[in-house]
Amino acid sequence: MRPSGRQTDQLREVTLQRHFTKHAEGSVLVSFGDTQVICTASVDSGVPRFMKGEGRGWVTAEYGMLPRATGSRNQREAARGKQTGRTVEIGRLIGRSLRAAIDMELLGENTVTIDCDVIQADGGTRTASITGAFVALSDAINGMLAEGTLKKNPIKHNVAAVSVGIWQDTAVLDLDYAEDSTAETDLNVVLASNGGFVEIQGTAEGEPFMPDQLKAMLDLAEKGGRDLFEIQNRALTEA
Amino acid sequence: MRPSGRQTDQLREVTLQRHFTKHAEGSVLVSFGDTQVICTASVDSGVPRFMKGEGRGWVTAEYGMLPRATGSRNQREAARGKQTGRTVEIGRLIGRSLRAAIDMELLGENTVTIDCDVIQADGGTRTASITGAFVALSDAINGMLAEGTLKKNPIKHNVAAVSVGIWQDTAVLDLDYAEDSTAETDLNVVLASNGGFVEIQGTAEGEPFMPDQLKAMLDLAEKGGRDLFEIQNRALTEA
Amino acid sequence: MRPSGRQTDQLREVTLQRHFTKHAEGSVLVSFGDTQVICTASVDSGVPRFMKGEGRGWVTAEYGMLPRATGSRNQREAARGKQTGRTVEIGRLIGRSLRAAIDMELLGENTVTIDCDVIQADGGTRTASITGAFVALSDAINGMLAEGTLKKNPIKHNVAAVSVGIWQDTAVLDLDYAEDSTAETDLNVVLASNGGFVEIQGTAEGEPFMPDQLKAMLDLAEKGGRDLFEIQNRALTEA
Amino acid sequence: MRPSGRQTDQLREVTLQRHFTKHAEGSVLVSFGDTQVICTASVDSGVPRFMKGEGRGWVTAEYGMLPRATGSRNQREAARGKQTGRTVEIGRLIGRSLRAAIDMELLGENTVTIDCDVIQADGGTRTASITGAFVALSDAINGMLAEGTLKKNPIKHNVAAVSVGIWQDTAVLDLDYAEDSTAETDLNVVLASNGGFVEIQGTAEGEPFMPDQLKAMLDLAEKGGRDLFEIQNRALTEA
Amino acid sequence: MRPSGRQTDQLREVTLQRHFTKHAEGSVLVSFGDTQVICTASVDSGVPRFMKGEGRGWVTAEYGMLPRATGSRNQREAARGKQTGRTVEIGRLIGRSLRAAIDMELLGENTVTIDCDVIQADGGTRTASITGAFVALSDAINGMLAEGTLKKNPIKHNVAAVSVGIWQDTAVLDLDYAEDSTAETDLNVVLASNGGFVEIQGTAEGEPFMPDQLKAMLDLAEKGGRDLFEIQNRALTEA
Amino acid sequence: MRPSGRQTDQLREVTLQRHFTKHAEGSVLVSFGDTQVICTASVDSGVPRFMKGEGRGWVTAEYGMLPRATGSRNQREAARGKQTGRTVEIGRLIGRSLRAAIDMELLGENTVTIDCDVIQADGGTRTASITGAFVALSDAINGMLAEGTLKKNPIKHNVAAVSVGIWQDTAVLDLDYAEDSTAETDLNVVLASNGGFVEIQGTAEGEPFMPDQLKAMLDLAEKGGRDLFEIQNRALTEA
Repeated sequence: MRPSGRQTDQLREVTLQRHFTKHAEGSVLVSFGDTQVICTASVDSGVPRFMKGEGRGWVTAEYGMLPRATGSRNQREAARGKQTGRTVEIGRLIGRSLRAAIDMELLGENTVTIDCDVIQADGGTRTASITGAFVALSDAINGMLAEGTLKKNPIKHNVAAVSVGIWQDTAVLDLDYAEDSTAETDLNVVLASNGGFVEIQGTAEGEPFMPDQLKAMLDLAEKGGRDLFEIQNRALTEA
Repeated sequence: MRPSGRQTDQLREVTLQRHFTKHAEGSVLVSFGDTQVICTASVDSGVPRFMKGEGRGWVTAEYGMLPRATGSRNQREAARGKQTGRTVEIGRLIGRSLRAAIDMELLGENTVTIDCDVIQADGGTRTASITGAFVALSDAINGMLAEGTLKKNPIKHNVAAVSVGIWQDTAVLDLDYAEDSTAETDLNVVLASNGGFVEIQGTAEGEPFMPDQLKAMLDLAEKGGRDLFEIQNRALTEA
Repeated sequence: MRPSGRQTDQLREVTLQRHFTKHAEGSVLVSFGDTQVICTASVDSGVPRFMKGEGRGWVTAEYGMLPRATGSRNQREAARGKQTGRTVEIGRLIGRSLRAAIDMELLGENTVTIDCDVIQADGGTRTASITGAFVALSDAINGMLAEGTLKKNPIKHNVAAVSVGIWQDTAVLDLDYAEDSTAETDLNVVLASNGGFVEIQGTAEGEPFMPDQLKAMLDLAEKGGRDLFEIQNRALTEA
Repeated sequence: MRPSGRQTDQLREVTLQRHFTKHAEGSVLVSFGDTQVICTASVDSGVPRFMKGEGRGWVTAEYGMLPRATGSRNQREAARGKQTGRTVEIGRLIGRSLRAAIDMELLGENTVTIDCDVIQADGGTRTASITGAFVALSDAINGMLAEGTLKKNPIKHNVAAVSVGIWQDTAVLDLDYAEDSTAETDLNVVLASNGGFVEIQGTAEGEPFMPDQLKAMLDLAEKGGRDLFEIQNRALTEA
Repeated sequence: MRPSGRQTDQLREVTLQRHFTKHAEGSVLVSFGDTQVICTASVDSGVPRFMKGEGRGWVTAEYGMLPRATGSRNQREAARGKQTGRTVEIGRLIGRSLRAAIDMELLGENTVTIDCDVIQADGGTRTASITGAFVALSDAINGMLAEGTLKKNPIKHNVAAVSVGIWQDTAVLDLDYAEDSTAETDLNVVLASNGGFVEIQGTAEGEPFMPDQLKAMLDLAEKGGRDLFEIQNRALTEA
Repeated sequence: MRPSGRQTDQLREVTLQRHFTKHAEGSVLVSFGDTQVICTASVDSGVPRFMKGEGRGWVTAEYGMLPRATGSRNQREAARGKQTGRTVEIGRLIGRSLRAAIDMELLGENTVTIDCDVIQADGGTRTASITGAFVALSDAINGMLAEGTLKKNPIKHNVAAVSVGIWQDTAVLDLDYAEDSTAETDLNVVLASNGGFVEIQGTAEGEPFMPDQLKAMLDLAEKGGRDLFEIQNRALTEA
C-alpha cells in the first residue's frame, strides 16, 4: 500500500495551468500532486555564436528551486554564487529532453530558453519540469507560428517525463517524496509520443537492480507516458 | 490621467494569499496589480555566530526574481554566479525594514529568514515584497507563539511599503511599470503602523526634486501606508 | 553636547585637496574630519555597448575601502573575490548622484568612471565620497573642455552629500563614527545646488522616526548642503 | 563495419596499470583503447560533518580532464574558476557508482576520495574512469585491511561501466570517439558483478530509441560488464 | 643618461611618513619618487588554524592597487571578483620578505597582517611596498612591546627591497616606470641589514642576462640596500 | 651525504618521453627522479586581442597538479573555483621562461599554449616543467616548420631550469622533496643555452643567504644547465 493510497501504476493528480504569468511567450504552472513548478519559455531571434549561419535553432533550459520549496530552507544559489551539481545536471537534462521534440531546421535561427523554477517540492521535480516545459514550449512555438516567424511546426512529437522506482520491492509509478526518500531504485524516464525513449536515468540507491525489475519499471514508465501525453494534449487544446 | 485610470492617491488592487506553499512557516503570495511576489518566512533556532549568547533574535531577507518575471528574460543570477547590485540592495532593504517591526529581545535566539521571489514584475517589486513579507513573518511568529517557542509577541507594529513618485509633474501613489519607467522621481517609503517612517529612499531620475514635491510625495505615502495596514490586518484575521 | 563639541548644525572640517595623484584626469583627497577618501575621475572615449550610437555620455562609480581604514581590519574584497552588499550599494549611490549633475547630451559619447577609495573611515564615507567625487568630476570635465573634447560644459549644478540623524533625540548634521554608531536614525541626503534633492536615504535603526523629526533632519541637510557647495566652489577656484 | 574493425560486442583493449603513481593509497592508469585516465584513491579517517557519529563511511569522486586531452585544447577549469556542468555530472556519477560497491557500515567512519583525471580522451572517459576507479578503490581498501584499519572487507561486488549505443542503426559495445560523435543513441551502463545494474543513463541524440533497441543495448552492456569484471579481477590478482 | 638625470647607483627620493592613518597599529606612506604606497600593519592575537599550539607567530601580506594608480585605469579587482596573478604574486613576496625579519618564537601566537595599497604607481611598487612595510611592521611590534604583549623584540634585522636592471646596456639602481618599461632585465632584490639576501627575482625581458651583468646588478642592489636601511632607521628614530 | 646519495652537483635521473599523448602538437612526459610532469604544447593561429596586427607571436603557459600528486591530497582547484597563488605564480614563470626562447617575429601571429600538469611530485615541479615544456614547444615548432606554417625556426636557444639550494650548509643541485622541505635557501634558475640567465628566483626560508653562498649556488646552476641542455638535445634528436 503506497503512502498516498495510489495504485502502483497511478500518477498523482497532474495539472497544467497555461498563461500562468503574463510576460513569457509560454508560461505554465505544472503540478504533480504537491510538486509545483513554474515553466516559462522565452523566445529570442538568433542562436549562440558557435551555431551561427547554419540555419538551425536551439533550445536550452535552466532549473532552479526557491529556497523554501522544501521542508527545510536551502541556501539561495545566487547568494552562494554557485549552482549545485544537482541543479546543473537537471537543467542539462531538461534541455536535452526538449531538444528531442524539435526539428531544429524548422525552428530556424531562433533560440527558446526554458526556465523551470520549483516553488514547492514533493518528489519528481525534474519529471514535472519536463512535462510542463513541453507545454510552455508548445505555446511559444504556436505563438511564433501565429505571428509568422515560423512557417512550419517544428514539433515532432510530445515529450513528457515520469519517475518509476522500486519501493518496498514493488515497481511503482510517479514517486512522491515519501516514496522517493525510501526507494531502493529511482528511474527517471523521458518519453516521446511516438513510443520511443528520449532519456533514461536510473540509480540504485542501495542494492543494484535486476534485469526483471528494470523491465517492470520500464513498462510502468510507458504507461505513465501515455497518460501524460493525454493530459498535455487536453491542456493544449483548451482556449 | 494615469495609464491605469487610477486616482493619484489610489493603490493598485493589493491581495495577500496566505499559506501559498506548504513547507514554509509563513508563505504569502502578494500582488500589487500585476506585480506578484512569493514571500516565505523560515524559522531556525539559533542566531548567526556574531550574535550568540546575547539573547536576541535576528531577521534577515533575500530577494530574487525569476528570469522571465519581466518583459524580456534576465540572466539567472545563480547561473551567472553573482547577484546584481540591485538584488543585493533590495534584499538588504527588506531585511532592515522587517527588523524594525520586531522586538529582538522577545524573539529570543531565533532567526527568521525571509525570501521574496518575484514571479511577475510590473513595478514596485520591493514595496510589494516588504508588504507581503510582513504577513509571512507574522504567520511565522504566530506559529512560534502557538507552539510555545515564544512566550510574548515580538511584533511591535505593522510594517508596509509603498512607492510614490513625480509622474508628469504630479505626485502619484504606487507606480506601476508604465509610470515607473517614465517617472521623474521615485521614492520608496517603508512605514510603520505607529505613524513613523522606517526607511525612505528617493531618487531623482532626471532633475532634482524640490522640497514641496517631497512633501507631496510623503503625504501620499502616509495615505498609502494606512491603506496597506488595513489590508494586512484584514488578511491576517482570515482563517 | 556632541562628542566632538560641534553645534547640531555644524559640519566637521571639510577639506578638498585637488591633484592628489598625478595620473587621473581628476584626483581629490576629501576629508570630513577624520574620514578621508581618494576620489579619482577617469575619462574614456566611448560608452557601454547598450548606449552606443545614442550620442549620450555615461558616468559610473565604484567604491572601496582599504582593509585597515577602520578600527579593526576588514577582509580585502579582492582577496575574498566578492564585494559586500554595502560596497556595491554605495558605488551605485555615488554613480546615480553624479549622473544627476551632468547633461548627458553635452557629455557626448564619453564615459567618466569615478573611484572612491576610503583610506581612513570615521563615519560618513559615502557622503564624503560624493562631495569629493563631484570636484574630481569637475576637474575631469574642465580638462575635456580645455583640450576641446567637449564644446560646452555639461555640468548642470553642483552635487554634494551630507548625513543627518537623530542622536540622543536631537537632529544633528554630519555624524561622525561616535554618533553614527549610536544614532537612532541615519539619513543620507544628496543635494543639488539648485535647491533640489537628488537622493534621500533614511533608515530607522531602532524606532521609526516621526514626520516632525524627518522635517528637522531635512532642514539641517539643506543647511549642510549650502555649506558644502561653498567649500566645493572655493576649492575649484584655487589654482 | 565499425571504424576500428571491432565486432559489435567487442570491447577496445582495456588495460589497468596499478601503482601508477606512488603517493596515493590506490593509483591506476586505465586505458580503453586510446582513452587514458589516471584514477587515484585517497583515504582519510573521518567523514563529512553531516555524517559524523553514525559509524558509516563515505566514498566520493571528482573528475577532470587535462586541457589538451582532446583534439583541440579546452580551457583549464581551474583557470576559468568553474567546472563545466559535464564535469560536475560525471564526478557525481562516478561517486554514486562506487558507493554502490561498498558496505558503508564496514567501511566505518573513513572517507575514500576518488580522483579520475583524463590524460587522453577518445570516447568513453566516464566508463573508463569508473572501471579503473574500482581497482584503485580496491587497492586502497586492501591497504586498510592490511594495516588493520578495517577488520572486514566492505566491498560487496565489483563495479564496472561500459557504453553501448546505436550506431548506423546497429547496437554496438564500447563506442570510441569516431562512433560516439555520430551515434544516434548513447547509453552508459554501470554494472555490478552480482548481475545487477547500478546506473543507466541513456540519451537519444536525434530520434528517440525504441524499446527493442534498448533491449539490444542492455544485452550488449551485460556482456561487456562480464568481460570487464574478468579484466579487473585479473589485474587485482597480479602482484 | 637616465631619464630622471640620476646616477646609475642613485635611488629616487625615498620618504617614509609614519602614522599616516590613525587606526592601524603601524601605518606608513612610503614613496620612491612618484611611486606611493600606503603600508599598514594590523595585529591580531592568535594564528591561523594550521599553526595553533606551536607557540609561534605569523606575518602575512596582501597587495593592491587603486584602479587609477596608473596611467590608464585598471579594472577594480574586487568588482572583477578575482585578483590578477601579478597581485597575488606580489602579496606572497611581501609576506615572505617580512617573515624573514622576524623571530617567530619571540612573536608568540600573534599574527601581523600587512596591507600594501598603491595609490600612485611609477615603477618599483613591490620594492617600495616591502621597504615601507618593514617600518609599519616595526611600529606595530614596538607597540606590542610597549603594551607588554611582547617581552622581547622579535625583529632580527631590517628588511628592504630595491630593483636593479640592465637599461641601455648599463646596470642601474631603482628603475622608475620610464626605465622599467624599456629595461632588458629587471631584478628585484630583498636584502637584510645583516648583509644577506632574502629574495632575488630576476627576469630577462628580452635577451638572457650574462653572469657579469648579474654581478653588476647585485653590487648595485647591495649599495641600494645600505641606503635604504639608513633611511628606514632614520624614520624609525623620529618621534 | 644527500638523502638520495647523490653528489652535490649531480642531477636526479632526468627523462623526457616525447609523443606521450596523441592529440597535442607537442607532448612530453618529463621526470626529474620521482617528479613527473605532462607537458603539452597546443598551437593556435592568431594571438590575443591586444597583440593583433603586430605580426608577432605569443607563448603562454598554465600549471596544474593532480589532487593526489602529493603525499596528502590537495583540494582540486577547479572544484574550489580558484587557483592558489602558487599555481598562478608558477604558470607565469613557465610562460616567461619559454618566451625567452622564441623570436616572436619569426613565430608570426600564432599562439602556443603550454600546459604543465604534475602527476607525481617530489620536489622541483617547476624546474621539471620548464625543462620538459621546452621540448614540447620544440616539437610543436618543428611541426609548424614541417607543414610550412613557419618559414624559419623561431627558437633562439634552449631553455631549461634547475633548482639549487643550501642544504645543511652546503650548496646542492636539483633538490628533491626530502631536501627541499628542510633547505635553508631555495633558488630556481632558468638558463639559456647561450650561457645567460632567463630567470632567477631565490628565497631564504630561514636566515638570509650570503653573497658567497649565492655564488656557489649560481655555479652549480650553470653546471646543471649544461647537463640539461645535453639531455634535451639528445631527446630531440631521437626519432
